[in-house]
Amino acid sequence: MNSTVSGPVRLAMVGGGQGAFIGAVHRAAARLDGAWQLVAGAFSRDPDNCRQTGAELGLDPARCYASWEDLLVGEARMAPDQRAECVAVVTPNHLHFPIARAALEAGFHVMSDKPATRTLEEAEQLSEIVSRGQCLYGLTHTYLGYPMVAEARNLVASGKLGTVRKVYVEYLQGWLSGAAEAQGSKQAKWRTDPARSGAGGAIGDIGTHAFTLAEWVSGQSVVSLAAQLNTFVEGRLVDDDAAALLRFDGGASGVLVSSQVCTGEENGLQIRVYGDRGGLHWKQMDPEVLLYRSADGQARILRAGVDQPLGQLALSRCRTPSGHPQGYIEAFANLYRDFAAAIRAGEQRTAQRVPGIGMGLRGMQFVDGMIDSHAGNGRWVNIQQEDKQ
Amino acid sequence: MNSTVSGPVRLAMVGGGQGAFIGAVHRAAARLDGAWQLVAGAFSRDPDNCRQTGAELGLDPARCYASWEDLLVGEARMAPDQRAECVAVVTPNHLHFPIARAALEAGFHVMSDKPATRTLEEAEQLSEIVSRGQCLYGLTHTYLGYPMVAEARNLVASGKLGTVRKVYVEYLQGWLSGAAEAQGSKQAKWRTDPARSGAGGAIGDIGTHAFTLAEWVSGQSVVSLAAQLNTFVEGRLVDDDAAALLRFDGGASGVLVSSQVCTGEENGLQIRVYGDRGGLHWKQMDPEVLLYRSADGQARILRAGVDQPLGQLALSRCRTPSGHPQGYIEAFANLYRDFAAAIRAGEQRTAQRVPGIGMGLRGMQFVDGMIDSHAGNGRWVNIQQEDKQ
Amino acid sequence: MNSTVSGPVRLAMVGGGQGAFIGAVHRAAARLDGAWQLVAGAFSRDPDNCRQTGAELGLDPARCYASWEDLLVGEARMAPDQRAECVAVVTPNHLHFPIARAALEAGFHVMSDKPATRTLEEAEQLSEIVSRGQCLYGLTHTYLGYPMVAEARNLVASGKLGTVRKVYVEYLQGWLSGAAEAQGSKQAKWRTDPARSGAGGAIGDIGTHAFTLAEWVSGQSVVSLAAQLNTFVEGRLVDDDAAALLRFDGGASGVLVSSQVCTGEENGLQIRVYGDRGGLHWKQMDPEVLLYRSADGQARILRAGVDQPLGQLALSRCRTPSGHPQGYIEAFANLYRDFAAAIRAGEQRTAQRVPGIGMGLRGMQFVDGMIDSHAGNGRWVNIQQEDKQ
Amino acid sequence: MNSTVSGPVRLAMVGGGQGAFIGAVHRAAARLDGAWQLVAGAFSRDPDNCRQTGAELGLDPARCYASWEDLLVGEARMAPDQRAECVAVVTPNHLHFPIARAALEAGFHVMSDKPATRTLEEAEQLSEIVSRGQCLYGLTHTYLGYPMVAEARNLVASGKLGTVRKVYVEYLQGWLSGAAEAQGSKQAKWRTDPARSGAGGAIGDIGTHAFTLAEWVSGQSVVSLAAQLNTFVEGRLVDDDAAALLRFDGGASGVLVSSQVCTGEENGLQIRVYGDRGGLHWKQMDPEVLLYRSADGQARILRAGVDQPLGQLALSRCRTPSGHPQGYIEAFANLYRDFAAAIRAGEQRTAQRVPGIGMGLRGMQFVDGMIDSHAGNGRWVNIQQEDKQ
Repeated sequence: MNSTVSGPVRLAMVGGGQGAFIGAVHRAAARLDGAWQLVAGAFSRDPDNCRQTGAELGLDPARCYASWEDLLVGEARMAPDQRAECVAVVTPNHLHFPIARAALEAGFHVMSDKPATRTLEEAEQLSEIVSRGQCLYGLTHTYLGYPMVAEARNLVASGKLGTVRKVYVEYLQGWLSGAAEAQGSKQAKWRTDPARSGAGGAIGDIGTHAFTLAEWVSGQSVVSLAAQLNTFVEGRLVDDDAAALLRFDGGASGVLVSSQVCTGEENGLQIRVYGDRGGLHWKQMDPEVLLYRSADGQARILRAGVDQPLGQLALSRCRTPSGHPQGYIEAFANLYRDFAAAIRAGEQRTAQRVPGIGMGLRGMQFVDGMIDSHAGNGRWVNIQQEDKQ
Repeated sequence: MNSTVSGPVRLAMVGGGQGAFIGAVHRAAARLDGAWQLVAGAFSRDPDNCRQTGAELGLDPARCYASWEDLLVGEARMAPDQRAECVAVVTPNHLHFPIARAALEAGFHVMSDKPATRTLEEAEQLSEIVSRGQCLYGLTHTYLGYPMVAEARNLVASGKLGTVRKVYVEYLQGWLSGAAEAQGSKQAKWRTDPARSGAGGAIGDIGTHAFTLAEWVSGQSVVSLAAQLNTFVEGRLVDDDAAALLRFDGGASGVLVSSQVCTGEENGLQIRVYGDRGGLHWKQMDPEVLLYRSADGQARILRAGVDQPLGQLALSRCRTPSGHPQGYIEAFANLYRDFAAAIRAGEQRTAQRVPGIGMGLRGMQFVDGMIDSHAGNGRWVNIQQEDKQ
Repeated sequence: MNSTVSGPVRLAMVGGGQGAFIGAVHRAAARLDGAWQLVAGAFSRDPDNCRQTGAELGLDPARCYASWEDLLVGEARMAPDQRAECVAVVTPNHLHFPIARAALEAGFHVMSDKPATRTLEEAEQLSEIVSRGQCLYGLTHTYLGYPMVAEARNLVASGKLGTVRKVYVEYLQGWLSGAAEAQGSKQAKWRTDPARSGAGGAIGDIGTHAFTLAEWVSGQSVVSLAAQLNTFVEGRLVDDDAAALLRFDGGASGVLVSSQVCTGEENGLQIRVYGDRGGLHWKQMDPEVLLYRSADGQARILRAGVDQPLGQLALSRCRTPSGHPQGYIEAFANLYRDFAAAIRAGEQRTAQRVPGIGMGLRGMQFVDGMIDSHAGNGRWVNIQQEDKQ
Repeated sequence: MNSTVSGPVRLAMVGGGQGAFIGAVHRAAARLDGAWQLVAGAFSRDPDNCRQTGAELGLDPARCYASWEDLLVGEARMAPDQRAECVAVVTPNHLHFPIARAALEAGFHVMSDKPATRTLEEAEQLSEIVSRGQCLYGLTHTYLGYPMVAEARNLVASGKLGTVRKVYVEYLQGWLSGAAEAQGSKQAKWRTDPARSGAGGAIGDIGTHAFTLAEWVSGQSVVSLAAQLNTFVEGRLVDDDAAALLRFDGGASGVLVSSQVCTGEENGLQIRVYGDRGGLHWKQMDPEVLLYRSADGQARILRAGVDQPLGQLALSRCRTPSGHPQGYIEAFANLYRDFAAAIRAGEQRTAQRVPGIGMGLRGMQFVDGMIDSHAGNGRWVNIQQEDKQ
């Protein structure tokens, strides 16, 4: 990849037209630190939507493409110092794989929304493609971008919790408590359609976030799981609720819960980790706080902020002194900023500080394992990582 | 049972000598509303401890008995208007059954600490005994005595949550995170000794509380469960950690977690219930608050207090206006007060507002089911209530 | 005072008949630890109410007196080992003084609800009477009975906060936001009637609690204050809202707020104290928690419990391990227990661990100062303690 | 002012070089929504700092000016469709006035950090200048940019609280608890230097935020105040702590507290407002939540989010569904976005949704009033708005 050595990284976006949610978040995240410049887009299959979105974003109409295929071709033809360097993939899940594959093969870095792919097989293929190439692949597991999640990982890694024994992770939402997909919600429609979303419903949409958070914070990999999936809303084609018992390779055990029918819950992701020397608790809806309890009975409130005594990664993810709250968009922006830095630093395949295809693959192993276990009436299913070497 | 018609109920206590914890709580609970009078005790096998405890409590030395057997005999001999009417059983678990059985058969009401017995077989026998006799049997599942737990049950029963789909209940403690039983803790010693505690460790000690809470609040019975038990502390003879997936008879599914190795946790019992119309959340460590969320996005903070718009049972369990916190001892006292009232009202076998042998039996079915499922590598085990008619 | 050397202290109560609030709390508090025995009462001027209250409490009808005057006479006539040793005064404010005076002069210890008297002059007289006699005088400034208030005082006293600079104390309620006194509330009626309540409304009823808390925790005395009083509800004869700036003798400055028209507030008493080395925060409605922040950015959650590393006084005021919440009644009971212990220990005039007439006098100096300052359009008024030597 | 009709607004920044805090926040806020383009800067008197800051921001070196005077001259010379349209003033306080005045007179819109000026006289002059001209003047009272602050104002305005009686506002920080200005903190140095900061210390720096918040949310203006100022850190030339009693023109009374010596406090801005029908509570450190209590005892948790039933202004200031936290930078960005929209809409003098010189003037009246009152030993000082018509 022939990159210019400095300046904002030039970004093309696929998806994210009017009516979408996550595309606008990606754009805000990319803007926040001035490390990216949006130069092109294929925002929608609907040409009007695409054109109008591009116009609102101040893009050259010539670079608002009718399809992602056109975008890849069109951008590849441009001068190296003009063309997009990276493609952001913010479409429904089933398109993540074909677009990411094509973009990587055409020499573009890829920043993809999660899950990485619709199926485990695709994830394996994509992993292969990434490992063969030079381009960087990033996956926006947003919640790993929060400073206090980095600090949680740091507490565990530095031994403050001792040997980790328990991991409780949960992601509770309520917005699919009714049949939103039958009531005109575009978001609900594709997320409950296996052809676009994948075989997993809630487990793919939010369970993968919980799973990734559990592995990243605990520093342990899940070896096996025993699951129960439910579909509470009649006529729904995918799970809308799940729970699983977990066993980790470092000896910990855990419980993972993900549900989109917990009426009244908003975006209730939280994790608790306990070792023989201490415990920690982090909640996404109160993201600047990390509660740390040690065996001697001390409970401490650790807080995000550039002025706080935090680990290096957490600190690098703060922009303001403590007490000036940062949130979801900043967490997202942290991943974008680190991805831009990795591109400029000439890193290859995996940006060191950004979730990559490895996590994408794990996520799909998790989804597959959950479905397998459920089909086997909750039997323990192995989802061990094969190549942790 | 020949009761006097009014005045405080005369109580004899077995267990609760110096060095014990729960006996003192029972006594404070019994005192709080003036509905009980402690008249006799067999507080300890150690005669000095027994005598001294009795003296501190201002008891007639002649009624401080060397053993519970002596107590039953001695009290039975006294004049009907003098002798103890009820026996409080606050010993380690293995003695609950023989004492309760003998007391009931000798014509005393029984207020027993939980679990009801050490084994399921004993619980079944005790259930038989209670159902054959006239005396009342109460079980101090303390947490059911909190006003806002009653209100939680009321919200569900009154349809405010719609059809219940999910029940998450957890009870996390950290005090057995190290080998406390090897370091001189009397409490830890008997609780981790199967001969005294029963086959379940954490699941018996605190898991039964969580289980009972889940069934009582949700108004549904657990049909089957799939469990994982762990013993994290080396050399420990019982589980110190457990998790289970649950299926309820009303169609709900759930997760139950109980652990005594969650370092830094104090007495972390909490329950969340979600239906298709709303959800609720109650935490024992913030017991005056019940969070209620409805499907229309309203989150309301319901609070305990004699001046609050609560259901009848919840209200009867408040003593102060809202904002004047009540806690653990008051919850306990609510059960004692209601038990005294049931005795004075001439109720038989089961006091209407106090947990009874039915819950005790369910608790032991739960413990047995957990152990069975774990032995079967987490297979689903049926613990259906046979006689819900 | 000729006391028996052991056993529960015999208590007579004046006030606290049906329809009253605080009398029942005093009785529950007295019962909780078994250190008191209620033996007599003049619960109401209404003979039926008095008799019925006594009957419900199981008292000898002969010791349910028609008036407090009768009570003092009647009890004084009884045998020394039978008669009441202490009189609890739980009437409206204007009767506190005459009853306490007469009781003390008749050789009874007195446990009085606050404020000590209706006027400053009475408080000065009562202080004289106490200092001349042998009997103990206790004042139920309930909130000083909470363990974590004792710990707050301990943190300050032990230097953990450094030199105290700021004290923010507030007591917000909402129950007098409307004209409750015109709508049949007995509680509201006497509290807003200067003849019964004293010249202060909210400042007497709850402001004195806040003031006392501020002085006791900070370890400093208020030298002067500048106040604004308000009466928001039309036709009300006393203040229902107040705020004051404070100067303390140790160099601290502060703000005190007390209001009964903060619609929706329940019993919102809280205190924050800041020194050059740290700060603390305690809230009555979450009484088991004390938040401590040190200058190095550490925020720690200190919690009540017999198993917690607390100061000696705080520890003595815990009955349960942390996580088993104690509340308002236990705080109250701590004062009663300590007062009983002081009686049994033969302490004189002032029980060491119980608020006494000194605090009562300070409270009335505060009320007078507030009214003076307000009359002077908020000028600074000196309320310095004269005899702190 | 000759503006282009669409596209991002071109921004020049004065101040905000390396070592500054707020400049970077302004830039991030301006970037977030793509509504601004930074085109020029005079970031520092130190030419190296200025050049390097500009280079990092990707600016044309020719537009990195040695002084703000040069910037105004240089930009004015550029073609209308190239030159900066707006000047952001992010210097220490004493420069706000001369820069804003010159910029406005040169035909630039101005977005100024607060306080508007160093003295009340300057604020009056600036008000005159703004009212005579065509350019827009915006003042970044950040906290007014939070969605739930807008909702708080909306609740009051829509009558949900009834007649407002009480306003409690406080802003507590701890970072000046020690002599930071003597220990090399650049931030502390100018903020405690009256020549650069103005006569007010904490009252100017953060008290003005609290004051503005109180007036904006309550919908009432402060008529008079009675203040106490303190300087706790030896040698400090300005107040580091203050408290004031307030009277509002709508009949409310209030308390304002601002302190920078509350050890351990981070950025503790909060407001509570009570009317005869309800109360509200908002905390900056938990900014997505607005607690609303009505007289009927209902306590409701209102939350930010595009999917929430909020007023129109609050909604327009949300970017994400509820549960995806937004914070300080988003609040700031809301003001920048609204200011850009006002410029593009051709609004004049005052952007409708952005704090303007009116608030700036009020802020300086507040500072002056506080100092006057303190000098008069806390006497009530009138700060009534003269021209509210």
